[in-house]
Amino acid sequence: MHEELRVKGERAREASYKLTTVATEVKNNALLAMADALEDNEEKILEANMQDMEAGRVRGMNKSLLDRLMLSSARIKDMAQGLRTLVSISDPVGEIESMWKGAQDIEIGKMRVPLGVIGIIYEARPNVTVDAAGLCLKTGNAVILRGSSDALRSNCAITNIIAKAAESAGAPGGSIQLIETSGREIALEMMKLNQYLDVLIPRGGAGLIQSVVTNATVPVIETGIGNCHVYVDSWAKLDDAEEIIVNAKTQRPAVCNAAESLLVHEAVAQEFLPSVGKRFRELGVELRGCSRTRELLCEAKQATEEDYATEFLDLILSVKVVDSLEEAMAHIHKYGTKHSEAIITENYTNARQFLQGVDAAAVYVNASTRFTDGFQFGFGAEIGISTQKLHARGPMGLKELTTVKYIIYGNGQSRK
Amino acid sequence: MHEELRVKGERAREASYKLTTVATEVKNNALLAMADALEDNEEKILEANMQDMEAGRVRGMNKSLLDRLMLSSARIKDMAQGLRTLVSISDPVGEIESMWKGAQDIEIGKMRVPLGVIGIIYEARPNVTVDAAGLCLKTGNAVILRGSSDALRSNCAITNIIAKAAESAGAPGGSIQLIETSGREIALEMMKLNQYLDVLIPRGGAGLIQSVVTNATVPVIETGIGNCHVYVDSWAKLDDAEEIIVNAKTQRPAVCNAAESLLVHEAVAQEFLPSVGKRFRELGVELRGCSRTRELLCEAKQATEEDYATEFLDLILSVKVVDSLEEAMAHIHKYGTKHSEAIITENYTNARQFLQGVDAAAVYVNASTRFTDGFQFGFGAEIGISTQKLHARGPMGLKELTTVKYIIYGNGQSRK
Repeated sequence: MHEELRVKGERAREASYKLTTVATEVKNNALLAMADALEDNEEKILEANMQDMEAGRVRGMNKSLLDRLMLSSARIKDMAQGLRTLVSISDPVGEIESMWKGAQDIEIGKMRVPLGVIGIIYEARPNVTVDAAGLCLKTGNAVILRGSSDALRSNCAITNIIAKAAESAGAPGGSIQLIETSGREIALEMMKLNQYLDVLIPRGGAGLIQSVVTNATVPVIETGIGNCHVYVDSWAKLDDAEEIIVNAKTQRPAVCNAAESLLVHEAVAQEFLPSVGKRFRELGVELRGCSRTRELLCEAKQATEEDYATEFLDLILSVKVVDSLEEAMAHIHKYGTKHSEAIITENYTNARQFLQGVDAAAVYVNASTRFTDGFQFGFGAEIGISTQKLHARGPMGLKELTTVKYIIYGNGQSRK
Repeated sequence: MHEELRVKGERAREASYKLTTVATEVKNNALLAMADALEDNEEKILEANMQDMEAGRVRGMNKSLLDRLMLSSARIKDMAQGLRTLVSISDPVGEIESMWKGAQDIEIGKMRVPLGVIGIIYEARPNVTVDAAGLCLKTGNAVILRGSSDALRSNCAITNIIAKAAESAGAPGGSIQLIETSGREIALEMMKLNQYLDVLIPRGGAGLIQSVVTNATVPVIETGIGNCHVYVDSWAKLDDAEEIIVNAKTQRPAVCNAAESLLVHEAVAQEFLPSVGKRFRELGVELRGCSRTRELLCEAKQATEEDYATEFLDLILSVKVVDSLEEAMAHIHKYGTKHSEAIITENYTNARQFLQGVDAAAVYVNASTRFTDGFQFGFGAEIGISTQKLHARGPMGLKELTTVKYIIYGNGQSRK
C-alpha cells in the first residue's frame, strides 16, 4: 500500500473514532473557524490557485475547465459562507429515529451515527475541497480528499488552512486530509482502501463516476446522469404544462435534473405542440421529434433512438407523441435513467398510476423536474443527487452522510 | 456476456417493472401457493436432493456440508412454513415515511419501493433458495438466484416448483429465476451485472463474502463476521454479568452474535472471574486470558494478539482484565468487527459513554449480544445481519430489501 494512504488512513480512523463523540457545538465552532481562516488567508489561496491556473494554461486546459479551477476573492467568500450555512442546519448525529420493545422487553433504539471515514474523489474544482470537508465534519465523519492533480496546489493550500483551523477549534487532528500524491495508481488504490474507508463518493463527470464504480471495492455512493422526461397527459392543464416543460428544459440546461425529453398524449398534441414549439423557438431550443411531432412542428428534426437515450445537458429536447399513459411510462422505463420524471395531468387515477409505476428517485405530478435538489427539498445542504438505490436515493442531505446503530437497554436479559 | 445471464437479466428487469405495482394480496397469494407447491412436490424435491447428496458423497464433501445440503420431509415443511409466515408481516412497499413541504409549497413524500432486481449468491443450502425467493417476492423485487453447483439439482427442482406456483397465483413471470450454469466465470460475471442487478447479497461463509466484496461492481450488502465483546464494568451487577456472558458465549457458539471476548474491570476481576470461570469449566469452554486473568484463573491459557482478533465460533473465549472503561472501549475499537458489543453496568454515565462511543451495529447495556437478530428485534423476518454501514446495518428485515423514492405533488410550480 502507498505510504501516504496508510499514514493518512490510520490518522483518519483515529480521528473518526474521536469525532463520534465530539459535541455539536465544537463541530460548529470548527466550521466557523474554517470559514474565517479561508477569508483570512485569501492571498495564500489565490497565489496557489494562480500557479495551478498558469500550469493549466501551459498544458492547454480548455476554457470551461479553467473557469472551474479558478478562484477569486468572491469565490473564496462563497466557500466560507457555505461553511457558515452548515452551522445552522441541525446535526443528525445522535438522533434516535425510533424506539420500541423487542424480545423479553429489551428496549431497542435506532440512533444516527457518523459513517466513519469518507473518501471523496473529485475533479479540478477547489470549492469541492471546502464543501466536502464541511459536510463531513458537520456529520462527524473524517474525510480523505483526493482532487485532480490540476488543482493540487489550490487544494493543498485550502486543506492546510481549514484543517489547522478546525483542529484549533477542537476537532481531532486528522479529521480533514488531502492525498497529495498524483497519478492514477494511487487513485485506484484509494478505491480499494476498505480497511480505512467506509464509503467513497465520486464527485464529477460521468467518466470519473464510471471509473470509481468499476474499480472500487469500497462501497460507493453514485451520483449520476439524468435523462428526465415531462409527460403531458390528455388531462393536462396545457398552460401549466407549457410553463413546466419550458422551465425544466431551459432554466438551467446543463444540470442533471433538467428535462431532456417531452412526451405528449396524442389527444392534446395538436393544441399543445405548436404553442410550446413557438416558445422553444424563441428560446433557441433545438427539437428532435418523432414523425407525429414533425407533422405539427415542421422545424423539428427527426429523433433517433439515440436521441431518446441521450442526456443532452444543452438546449436540445427530444419529443414524442404517445397514444396513452402506458406508452409514456413504457418509454420512460426504456430510456429513463431513474432520476426525475414528471406527469402533467388533472386526472386523479393517471397521477397515481404514474407516481406508483415510474421507477425514479423523484416522481412529480404537476411540477418541474428542476426541484430535485437538496435545497429545494428543504434539506439545507446537498452532497449530490444519488441515482443508485442503496443507502441514499435522490437529493442527499446531511442525514445521508450518516448511518444508524441500534442501542439496546436491557436489565439483565439473556437469549432464550 | 453469458447468454443465460442476459436472458434471465432481461426477464428479471421486466418482472421487476411489473412487480412494482402488484398488490400486496397478490404477493401474499403467491407466497401461499409457493408453500403449498413445495409440500405437494416433496417427492420431486427429495429425489433431486438425493442425487445432489449422492454426488456430494462421491466427491467427498464433509459431513457438516452434507448436513446443510440434505433435505427431508420436515425441512421442506419448515421451508413452506417460512413462506407462510411472510404473509402475516406487513408489506413495506408503498409506505410513506414522511411528507413535508419544500420550495414553493411543493408537497414531498418519501415512499418505500422495491429495490428492483436482487442477486443472491449462496452456498450449498437449498433452503436459502426458498427463503430468499420469498423475501424478495414479498418486497416486490425480482430475484436471480445463484447457489452452489453442489446443490444445483435441488435448487432447480425447488425453483421450478415455486416459480411456477408464484406465476399461477398472479406474480409476473421471471420474478424468481435460478442461474443454472456452473462455474466460477459466470459467478464473477454476475457480480458485475450492473445493467440488470440493483443489489447483490452474498449469503454464506467469510470466503464467499470476501470474494463478492472484492469482485463485485454491483452494490453489495455485506453480512459478515462478529468478534463480539462483553465488558463487565466495575459497577456491574455481577450475577447479571455472569448470566449474560455465559449466554452470549454458550447459548449458540457458532453464530455471529455470540460473544468471543470477555473484558473485566480490575476492581471486580477478583470476585467475578473465579465464579464465572467455574461456570465455563462446567460448560467446557476453553479460556484464553491475559496475565492478570491467569493469576485468577489458573486453567486459562495465555491469550495471544491473534486470540483477541479471532471470531472463534466455538467454545473458546478470550479474556482480558482492563483498568478502565476507556481501556475496554479502546480494546473493542482495536479488535472488534462492529457487530454487537455489550457493557454490564449500573453506572449511568458509563452506560451512556459506552452506547455513544462504541461503533458497532448493535450496542447493548445489560443484555446479551445474542439478541442481534431480526426476529428478536421484532422485524418478523431476517435477511441477514449487515456489518457494513451503507444502506442497512445490523439485522435486516423486509424494509432493508426496499429503497425509497420521492413523490412530489405540485400544482404547476416551476423552479425560480
